[in-house]
Formats: sequence, structure tokens, C-alpha cells
Amino acid sequence: MLASSAVLRRQQFLIRSLGGYSYHSHQTRMQEVKSMGGNNLEADAENILRAITPTLDPRKHKGQAGKVAVIGGCREYTGAPYFAAISALKIGADLSHVFCTKDAAPVIKGYSPELIVHPILEESYSVRDEDKRTISSKVLAEVDKWMERFDCLVVGPGLGRDPFLLDIVSEILKHARKSNVPIVVDGDGLFLVTSSLDLVSGYPLAVLTPNVNEYKRLVQNVLGCEVNDEDAHEQLLNLAKQIGGVTILRKGKSDLISDGETVKSVSIYGSPRRCGGQGDILSGSVAVFVSWARQLILASDGNFTSSPRNPTVLGCIAASALLRKAASLAFKNNKRSTLTGDIIECLGTSLEDICPVH
Amino acid sequence: MLASSAVLRRQQFLIRSLGGYSYHSHQTRMQEVKSMGGNNLEADAENILRAITPTLDPRKHKGQAGKVAVIGGCREYTGAPYFAAISALKIGADLSHVFCTKDAAPVIKGYSPELIVHPILEESYSVRDEDKRTISSKVLAEVDKWMERFDCLVVGPGLGRDPFLLDIVSEILKHARKSNVPIVVDGDGLFLVTSSLDLVSGYPLAVLTPNVNEYKRLVQNVLGCEVNDEDAHEQLLNLAKQIGGVTILRKGKSDLISDGETVKSVSIYGSPRRCGGQGDILSGSVAVFVSWARQLILASDGNFTSSPRNPTVLGCIAASALLRKAASLAFKNNKRSTLTGDIIECLGTSLEDICPVH
Repeated sequence: MLASSAVLRRQQFLIRSLGGYSYHSHQTRMQEVKSMGGNNLEADAENILRAITPTLDPRKHKGQAGKVAVIGGCREYTGAPYFAAISALKIGADLSHVFCTKDAAPVIKGYSPELIVHPILEESYSVRDEDKRTISSKVLAEVDKWMERFDCLVVGPGLGRDPFLLDIVSEILKHARKSNVPIVVDGDGLFLVTSSLDLVSGYPLAVLTPNVNEYKRLVQNVLGCEVNDEDAHEQLLNLAKQIGGVTILRKGKSDLISDGETVKSVSIYGSPRRCGGQGDILSGSVAVFVSWARQLILASDGNFTSSPRNPTVLGCIAASALLRKAASLAFKNNKRSTLTGDIIECLGTSLEDICPVH
Repeated sequence: MLASSAVLRRQQFLIRSLGGYSYHSHQTRMQEVKSMGGNNLEADAENILRAITPTLDPRKHKGQAGKVAVIGGCREYTGAPYFAAISALKIGADLSHVFCTKDAAPVIKGYSPELIVHPILEESYSVRDEDKRTISSKVLAEVDKWMERFDCLVVGPGLGRDPFLLDIVSEILKHARKSNVPIVVDGDGLFLVTSSLDLVSGYPLAVLTPNVNEYKRLVQNVLGCEVNDEDAHEQLLNLAKQIGGVTILRKGKSDLISDGETVKSVSIYGSPRRCGGQGDILSGSVAVFVSWARQLILASDGNFTSSPRNPTVLGCIAASALLRKAASLAFKNNKRSTLTGDIIECLGTSLEDICPVH
């Protein structure tokens, strides 16, 4: 557990960083959003990151700084789950697992010996119809053995769209929800969730991290209209509210974050490179920061009064800030040839810049 | 989309770089080629590279800087498709796919998590005769799902010469052509195309990148004679014309480029090392620069008047210049032990030298 004085210090810091306003109704917030204009929505992201990042303490043991799991990786995609899982470790999680298909596992294991990779998911092509039910139960039993040990799941990086695999992942989402484990949904996980909103609807520990196209599909499906960039904040607030208060991190030139109660933006300059895989760094990072924010809030024993006090919103703000800082540094070093791996290599330095160990 | 003022600026730049002459007949061009002598054929390659390389803009999203796919990689060859695909990313493409055989996929995936590798091609040894038709349709259906998303295909690096595999690749070429996707053909792709010229003949978005031996076979097959180095420009022009205006990049001490209308050379000093794999860097680079040149021309809405205005010629010139610059830098650092991977590591610095981000 966190030492309580450290918890209090970080809380005070958070309250100052966030302006200390208390929880209030959608109506009031909406007026506030409108009157604040663009700049006032900007989160004090680096202060939030500092506030939720736990102090390193030699008395802690393995696991206390976070255990995350990525559900993803199939015959086609192996890079995405690796990027998400290794980013979580590079930020400071103690253990990072990947649950993927049998084909993907040796490749992902090969990228790094730091990850724990479970080759348990199955795709239709390798399963006979009559075996599907048995295999599905087996996979779920295996994931369940681990579920309660995880501080956060990331569902979707490199998951693919195989219907049998997605059915199993739907069940994993239900089990995670029953166990009150936070879930970050990205990539093909968003494809699944957009067509089965019940999987996350009303679950306050769910975070969706859509890019331009994924956001478009979400808006069309949930609000039945097109994306409105004129009133982006209000539309995002409304969307998050409609999905029962899940947190949405809308990726773009500025990242916009809402849980249906508040909207915040992170506009720190990142990089103009749009190479694939950056979203995976973000989802792995959100998982870690959400775990830390939640741990801080739980340890505060109900004395956490700032707003937004939602750990998922705080985690999204911190992750967005860190990715942008790391991308900016990687771009400074590598210019047009910047790849996702280069950004991951900059996560540590960027974190130390914002939140030095001493 | 590109901002139109930026398009216009780059167009003006291109027109100046290329001397601004307009499109005219083969006859006139032939006389010009003859009268210009060697030096005047030299392309103003670095200016062309600068002109067609898009500005980086934080408002763009993933995919807009290019999505390329390499068709290649079999039981025997895995390095070649990796070199082509990773080079495309290092130059600035957003996404780089590889479609290869099932055996080759885990290895290529293992080289880098940045690539998306589809293990879908099949060779004769793993397929029974009676299954060939079904498997062939499956592979094509899978490639077709992706085809229209790609800005360019590279066909051939590490493809091998298995007859069943080459039959499937012939079909992929036909589909790409129907979808108006540019195609760069190298290595074993040239073996296929040289004996089935119809696959590319008359397709203005095809680029062939033969080395000495591949060029020799092409000349023998198409022109029915031997390579004539005395009149190299004229023979190349004639060859490209005979294949219906495809673009040919003849690799050599100087690279010579023609689309049957114009001939240009790139003679920037590269490296005396001839380690295998450099052709793969070139084919991946041509794919990116052709995509960019085409994007620029399409965005100009018909107002693109310089000559050569052919995006495939422009792309070949830029790619040749960049490879030569990177090879020269890698050789300076590594001397006799320079390998293809060392040259790939120099692509970013070389690109930044020619075309700085700011």
C-alpha cells in the first residue's frame, strides 16, 4: 500500500492541478464547457501525470507498480500487442502479459523476453465447429485464472476480426467487468464494442481510445449522426454519456477526453509522423496510468474530492501527455524516419523529464 | 488533402527543376536525347525529391503519408521483403504490409514489429493438385480485401519461382491493375513479368527495376537483341515504349529511367559495395516516392504541367537519389563491411540532408 502521507501530498497536488471544483450536473458542466472556450479545457497534464505516478519505494514488492494484460495478437498482427505490452513495462508497470493466438505467441515472445505471453486464443480456421464450445470454455477458464491479478486489461491491439475469436473476447470482457478490472479498448476491440455496446455500456472503468475512423463509426452508431468538429467537446461529452459514462479518449491533433461529466483536452505538441503503432503505445500507457490513478484514489479512502476525480480520465490525460512528449523527442532524433519503436525508446526519458525519480 | 498553396509551390519547384518543357512526341524527344548528350540527361534529382516529398502536418492522420504492400517472401527468402517493407517505413510511409508464404511470415514478423505481415501465399510443395484452385481463390480474396487501401504494391522481393505461387501473383497483378494501384516489379517479379509481358504492358502505373541480368533478359525478350551500351538511353526509351509506356529504372553505375517518352539518369555517387538487398531498398523507396508524386499530381487537379510529369518517373528519380546518398553515407561509416541494414539505417539522415523537415 502507498504510505498515507504520500497519498495526501499527491491528492493536494491533484486538487490544485485540477482547479478543485466539485462534481456537478451535466447541465452545469455543459454550460461551463461552452463558456470556458478551447484553452480552459486544456488539462494541466504534466501536473496530473506527476500526481498519479507512484513514488518508487524499495519496500514495495513485485506487482505493486502494476500488472497489465493485453488481449490481442493473431496470425496477422503481432506488432500491435507487443507495442502496447512493452510500453506498459517501459512506463513502470511490474508485469506485462499478452494473451494471443498460438500462431502469434512465438513471434511476440521473440520480440522481447520481458513479456509473459499466453498462446491461448483460437481463430476459426484452426477450430472445427463441433469443438468451438469446448475450446471457448477452456480459453475462458485459462484467462479467469489470471483475471483478478490484473490491474488493467487492454483489449484490441492486433486482435483481428475473426468472429470466433471476437466471441471469446466478448466473454473475457464480461468476466473482466464482473471482476471490476479496468478495461482499455482499442483497435479491433473497438470494432467489437461498437457493434456490441452492451459489453462496455454503463461500466465506469471502461476506456475507449478511438482514432478518426473508429470515432466516426462510434458516433454514427451511438448518436446516429456524423462527427461534428464545430462542437467537438459537446458531442464527445454526449457520446460518453450515451454509453453510460465510459471514458472516451478521442485521438487527434489534440486529444479530447470525456467521461460524460467533464471534457479535457491535451494539446502538448507531439510529432507529425503518423506511422502505425502509436495507438498501441497509448493504450498500454493508459492502462498503467489508470491503474495508478485508481490505486491512489482507493488508497485515499474516500477523501479524494477533486474533479475530475475519475481515475480513467486522469489516466488518459497522463498517457496522452507522455506519448506526445516521447513522440516529440523521437521525432527530434529521427525526423521523417521515426518509427513506433523509436517512440517507445523515448518513453523513459520523457517520463523522467516530467516526473523525475528524485 | 494537401493544402493547395503547398501543391502549387511544389509544382513551381518541379517545373523549374525539370526545365519546364511540355509533353511531346517520341521523335522530337529522341532528337533531344541525342543532342543533349550524357550530362543533360542527368535529373535534378535532389530538387525532384524535395518537390514530391509531402510536408509533415499534425492535422494529417494515419495512412495519409502512404500505405504500401510488398508481395514476396517464401521458404527460401525472407530478407528481401523485409528490406523493401522497412525501407518504405523509414522513408515516411505510415503503414507497410508484407504478403508472403506461411513459412516466411514468422521470420519476417520477427525482424520487426513495425510491419504487418500476412502469411497467406502458398508454394506447390505444400498444396495438393486438387486443392490448388480453392487455395488460389482464397488467397486472392484475402489480398482483394486490402487491395484498394494500398497506394502502391512492390511485387517480387524474395518471391521465389515456384510456378503455383507465380500463378497466384499473376492474378494479384491483374487485380492491382484493375484497381489502378501502382506496381513496382523487382527480382523474381521481373522473372514472371519478362515471360508474361501482358501483365504490365500498357499499364502506365507499372515500374520495372531491373539489374544488369534482369535488364539483359528483358531486352532479349522484348527487343530481340543484345544490350547496347553505346546507345543505352535510346535502347531504354525504346524498350519502355515497346512495353506500352511502363517506367523502367535500369540499375547500374548510373541509374537510367525511362517511360518511353523521356530518359533521365541519376549518377550521384553511391557506394562500391554490391551486397545483396540494395535493390530491395530501392523498390520499397520507389513505392513511397511514386505514391507521393501521384498524390501531389492528383491533388493538383489537372494543373500539373511540367514534363516529365509522370509520377512513376519522378518517384524513380527520387528513390535512386536517396538510395545512393544513403549507401554513400553507410560506406563512409562501415567501409568494406557495409551491409544492406547499414544503408537502411542511413535512409533517415540522408532524407533529412536532402529534404529537412523544417
